[in-house]
Amino acid sequence: MSDLGVTVKKSQDLSEWYTQVILKSELADYAPIKGCMVYRELAYGVWEKIQEIFNSKIKRTGHKNMYFPLLIPESFLKKEAEHFAGFVPEVAWVTLGGDSPLEEKLAIRPTSETIIYAMFSKWIRSWRDLPIKLNQWCSVVRWETKATKLFLRTREFLWQEGHTAHATKEEADREVMDILKEYRDLMENYLAIPVLAGKKTESEKFAGALYTTTLEAIMPDGKALQMGTSHNLGQNFSKVFDIKFIGKDEAEHYVWQTSWGISTRLIGAMVMTHGDDKGLVLPPKIAPIQAVIVPIPYKAAQVEKIMAKAEEIYSRLQNFGISTVLDDREEYTPGWKFNHWELKGIPLRIEIGPRDLQNGQVTLARRDTMEKMVVKDEDLEKTVAKLLEEIQQNLFNRAKKFLEEMITCVKTYDEFKKVLKEKGGFIKASWCLSSECEAKIKEETGATIRLIPFEKEALISNCCVYCGREAKEIVYFAKSY
Amino acid sequence: MSDLGVTVKKSQDLSEWYTQVILKSELADYAPIKGCMVYRELAYGVWEKIQEIFNSKIKRTGHKNMYFPLLIPESFLKKEAEHFAGFVPEVAWVTLGGDSPLEEKLAIRPTSETIIYAMFSKWIRSWRDLPIKLNQWCSVVRWETKATKLFLRTREFLWQEGHTAHATKEEADREVMDILKEYRDLMENYLAIPVLAGKKTESEKFAGALYTTTLEAIMPDGKALQMGTSHNLGQNFSKVFDIKFIGKDEAEHYVWQTSWGISTRLIGAMVMTHGDDKGLVLPPKIAPIQAVIVPIPYKAAQVEKIMAKAEEIYSRLQNFGISTVLDDREEYTPGWKFNHWELKGIPLRIEIGPRDLQNGQVTLARRDTMEKMVVKDEDLEKTVAKLLEEIQQNLFNRAKKFLEEMITCVKTYDEFKKVLKEKGGFIKASWCLSSECEAKIKEETGATIRLIPFEKEALISNCCVYCGREAKEIVYFAKSY
Repeated sequence: MSDLGVTVKKSQDLSEWYTQVILKSELADYAPIKGCMVYRELAYGVWEKIQEIFNSKIKRTGHKNMYFPLLIPESFLKKEAEHFAGFVPEVAWVTLGGDSPLEEKLAIRPTSETIIYAMFSKWIRSWRDLPIKLNQWCSVVRWETKATKLFLRTREFLWQEGHTAHATKEEADREVMDILKEYRDLMENYLAIPVLAGKKTESEKFAGALYTTTLEAIMPDGKALQMGTSHNLGQNFSKVFDIKFIGKDEAEHYVWQTSWGISTRLIGAMVMTHGDDKGLVLPPKIAPIQAVIVPIPYKAAQVEKIMAKAEEIYSRLQNFGISTVLDDREEYTPGWKFNHWELKGIPLRIEIGPRDLQNGQVTLARRDTMEKMVVKDEDLEKTVAKLLEEIQQNLFNRAKKFLEEMITCVKTYDEFKKVLKEKGGFIKASWCLSSECEAKIKEETGATIRLIPFEKEALISNCCVYCGREAKEIVYFAKSY
Repeated sequence: MSDLGVTVKKSQDLSEWYTQVILKSELADYAPIKGCMVYRELAYGVWEKIQEIFNSKIKRTGHKNMYFPLLIPESFLKKEAEHFAGFVPEVAWVTLGGDSPLEEKLAIRPTSETIIYAMFSKWIRSWRDLPIKLNQWCSVVRWETKATKLFLRTREFLWQEGHTAHATKEEADREVMDILKEYRDLMENYLAIPVLAGKKTESEKFAGALYTTTLEAIMPDGKALQMGTSHNLGQNFSKVFDIKFIGKDEAEHYVWQTSWGISTRLIGAMVMTHGDDKGLVLPPKIAPIQAVIVPIPYKAAQVEKIMAKAEEIYSRLQNFGISTVLDDREEYTPGWKFNHWELKGIPLRIEIGPRDLQNGQVTLARRDTMEKMVVKDEDLEKTVAKLLEEIQQNLFNRAKKFLEEMITCVKTYDEFKKVLKEKGGFIKASWCLSSECEAKIKEETGATIRLIPFEKEALISNCCVYCGREAKEIVYFAKSY
């Protein structure tokens, strides 16, 4: 059995551990095409959970799901100059249809602003048509040249992209923040990953945006991971795509737009944040399977009774709304099954053996703490539900504590470099707003400004951590994925 | 208002009517890329319903959703010769990643057998790993050269593709038929479209399959529409992709495989089958919105009371599980709203005016028959639920009657040609099994064999309808989309 498990400790070699956990738990696999991956049933199950949760949030606030073409003519991408410059180096181009060369090459969407906004200009005429708030679940392709990392850096990945058009900047501002709030709720209260929120600097914002807001998490190796972004696009796209409306004032105006996205990299963040030396640990609210029942037949005479009890418990938990699997396969031993489901990170295991049967009880094992406990049969549903909540909260608390420990305030550039090298994590420092200082720090240390916090914080020092000139903002630096 | 409605009758010009209904109801739109379309919220909402229904069916029977790469190396497609020959003329090829020409060109998936089965050969080792039953929701690209027809012939469309691997042919046979049964249930009991079921001939089967089963519907112009297919792939792919398992007998065997798919062309079939001169007609079980409430405020004094009642009814219906919209927009008149929601095919309209308020009643209008009726407030939920069932049944019955009328038995080739020209529909005739006769009929009349029924039917004539030699089977011919 041991050779099937993860052979390296998370604290020893995070990168190797990460890959082993994903492959051995059968969460996902490398595809036989460079840079691409396969989302196996467990990863796709988590993604379906994310879709369900986020769909319910955005539909409640009037957003509609639609689907736009995969292929975008080069001329569309070119319309917004910054956008084109930002995306064109990593576009996969279709140049042949059957045997015939295409007149204009077509990009596989790296993101869909341009194709969607070409439709907006057709659909929007009057203030009555506003706001438009839509969302698309799809995959996008970005022709990465750096080494592949499952979920975090692949040439194709799954995501959602929201696109809205509004009559005023204020409404677009509000939309940007409303979505960021929903993202944060999804990340913290479902994926159990605490995040920091703020604005990106000019050099880090989305190509073509007025400004970008972001949510950033910290990984166990002290590197930050961008979890989701929400952009106010201003009128940059509406001007080039000619998206105008007749206002109540009977004059013509360009719309104000937003776009926002989260991707399957959230699953990668979840693996790194919660996994341990035994494999995955899935937060109960996002786990496609929340509990697994393993019957432990001992003497032949009792097999039938134990199996009957296991089936009864399965039905009771399912009826109670707990997503449960009964592993009644005869070709595997209970010990093999324990390892199997631990590796897959199922939050709770329920064992039923001869002694349990005799005493009218079952044995529960938590995946997060590996604690075992005995529960009376009649208390089963309530105890399981309570434990799942506790596991969810425990995972979040653990990650929150780590995030807090990984924020360090520094006053000088020497301190900055020392902390970055020895500890990593987020480094809070004063900054003068110059993009030259930002670029120099990136060049010299590899760290970037991950965000400018929304709420003004008191300056740590009155001087910019790099140039020593007058500081204007507190910002969070980090190396990142 | 009239210029916003459909300006041509369904019976006059089906093709023009079809396009107008789709565009004016805002079901879907042409994309600004040749051959591609946009699935707007109403079409995507129907697709989400189809996903929900079909997911629940296949998950119950142990199928798992996964996601495989969009791009397939040419060498993979080439492995199964028939498959390659069948798909390569309509493949869109990626040849450039950023600025760099690719070493091997990549196909945008026209279907995913080859990329999925490359993974199967890695995942399957022993009988314990079988069966594998998986499904993928995605879009596929086929570089059509014929004229675009929304939902029915586009270069990109949405679909699901199921892929399974089994230890025996019998198990694969069973899977093929189980899925066909689920498809039929979806089509007949949700989309309210009756279908004929049977096997495809050798020349019409899926490229690379052992045999193909199909479900075929009839459209108002007498042309057949292939609604879904389920294939037994035999060992054709397992042999070229080397998908072997060690059986319980400890010997090595190739797996038996199936694949099956339905696509958004089902939405096109729904439009054609149920729509009328006023626009779309959505079957209640597949309608993203089942009922729309239109308040009819008359005197200013009553506006508040009517609106309060409308909101009360909205909550009551939603709580009763009926997907409802309250159209309380002030910028449109009730008459405009009636037309708007009729065009969109919402099954039931609920009006509340001053007289309704006074009499403790509301007025209901059925979309299928345009009948209006008054219902007591206290009976509302039950009556609405009952009416939705009746509408669902009525749409199916109407379509079923039409399908039956559109099946004609013929004995001679002259009759065959006459019926095809004057009436269309399915033509039942005797056939000698020769693919030459089949090809000649296609060449001379444009009709193909849509299916060989599963249950042997008594021969209409002992002679093949084309060559006069001994007939072996009754088959259904038709022209088709």
